[in-house]
Amino acid sequence: MQTDTSFQHPVAAQAQRCREQIRNNVHRGPTAGLAPGAVQANLMILPKDLADEFLLFCQRNPKPCPLLAVTGPGEHSVPSMGADIDLRTDVPRYRVWRHGDLVDEPASLNDVWRDDLVSFLIGCSFSFEEALLAEGIDVRHISQGVNVPMYRTNIPTQGTARLAGPMVVSMRPLKAQDAIRAIQITSRFPSVHGAPVHLGDPSLIGITDINRPDYGDPVTIQDGEIPVFWACGVTPQAVIDAVRPEFSITHAPGHMLITDIPNTKLASL
Amino acid sequence: MQTDTSFQHPVAAQAQRCREQIRNNVHRGPTAGLAPGAVQANLMILPKDLADEFLLFCQRNPKPCPLLAVTGPGEHSVPSMGADIDLRTDVPRYRVWRHGDLVDEPASLNDVWRDDLVSFLIGCSFSFEEALLAEGIDVRHISQGVNVPMYRTNIPTQGTARLAGPMVVSMRPLKAQDAIRAIQITSRFPSVHGAPVHLGDPSLIGITDINRPDYGDPVTIQDGEIPVFWACGVTPQAVIDAVRPEFSITHAPGHMLITDIPNTKLASL
Repeated sequence: MQTDTSFQHPVAAQAQRCREQIRNNVHRGPTAGLAPGAVQANLMILPKDLADEFLLFCQRNPKPCPLLAVTGPGEHSVPSMGADIDLRTDVPRYRVWRHGDLVDEPASLNDVWRDDLVSFLIGCSFSFEEALLAEGIDVRHISQGVNVPMYRTNIPTQGTARLAGPMVVSMRPLKAQDAIRAIQITSRFPSVHGAPVHLGDPSLIGITDINRPDYGDPVTIQDGEIPVFWACGVTPQAVIDAVRPEFSITHAPGHMLITDIPNTKLASL
Repeated sequence: MQTDTSFQHPVAAQAQRCREQIRNNVHRGPTAGLAPGAVQANLMILPKDLADEFLLFCQRNPKPCPLLAVTGPGEHSVPSMGADIDLRTDVPRYRVWRHGDLVDEPASLNDVWRDDLVSFLIGCSFSFEEALLAEGIDVRHISQGVNVPMYRTNIPTQGTARLAGPMVVSMRPLKAQDAIRAIQITSRFPSVHGAPVHLGDPSLIGITDINRPDYGDPVTIQDGEIPVFWACGVTPQAVIDAVRPEFSITHAPGHMLITDIPNTKLASL
């Protein structure tokens, strides 16, 4: 992803204004709807030892864990995703975990930053949902104003020595024609989970009650609609939860890192 | 589609040998499995008056009626699809229709050819099925050795003054993951029906009994499989059946025109 010094994409300009407001604690809420058109990223921060293994886990599981960027140890800038990004301050709310327990939800990481921390920016379905909405497709949890429903499945991930766990999926109910179109559209976005991993009968992937998601909120499935399931960025978090590492940091749900990258740039073609 | 005079694609060489055997009545049977990798085409031949309108019908309904080539009146060569093609002799079995009644199934059209006949070469699902098989997907009617099941639906076509009718679809039962992959694969082949038009509940497109197709043979749908429906090249034939034109010619089912074009060349990307 190249930055052009003479021309700034309007999406990037707006993303920078949003980050500045977040950095200065003017905005401290969820980021949905901020900087439309800009890629928003999930954040996972781990000490180097486990980070090396988490990188391998992501390489082996690109659908739930599509990596947009990975820093070196201690680095808190990510110039490829935005020249002025500071990962210690540019997320509205963080979650700090010790041995798997949530210990704090600060607005900055200045007090807990360490030189061995590696940050992973992971693609988020906001990007492909924007493309679905642009097509006129009803993205149900958005039209119902709730969080996307997410489920633990019996689809295994490809584990590493310490990291393993089931894939988590998000679900969007769609009419058949919209499902077909959504498969085409999301296939173009491999770095934000890509094509669905399942559609139709939820029990075939180990979901026993579609109306009781494991994360997020239930949504209405109308007559004639098919539940369509995408690999979900909650998967790595669920895996980390199981490992309960000594120290880790994530974004708080819905409080994402806004990058300068236009969603359209993620399209593979 | 370009022809290179110095290099002949091996698929084209084999297609030409097959056409020669067909032209000389050495081969008079179905063409499935002949000249693997070569595009096989549905043939529809109409007098110029109705042909003009049929061309418009195809333009308006590209999914069931994807045109590979259209001749001028009286022309029986189609150099874009194969230098030596003679449409009067190169299909193993034709069907000649008068006022909608089947009157003959000759091996050549030399006795009935007219100077006002326009020929339409229409894409055939053989091309995308080859791509599905190459992916390791079980194409059920092939593995069961029967004809693909086809159904009249309540999906309307975009009619013209004299031509109208419901879309006919073909059905392939697939596991969800294979259905998703098949949507990706067939999306690359718009000139052979492209992506499916429906998946899941057959009743939503007016199919009352999936085990009783209107054309072709029923196939087994296994537990956990989803019926996936593609627009079908039988649609124009069904529309013509309804019009009962004074004179028309088609290929006999399964007895296709083998062209020099590699299936891979039909991929849009």
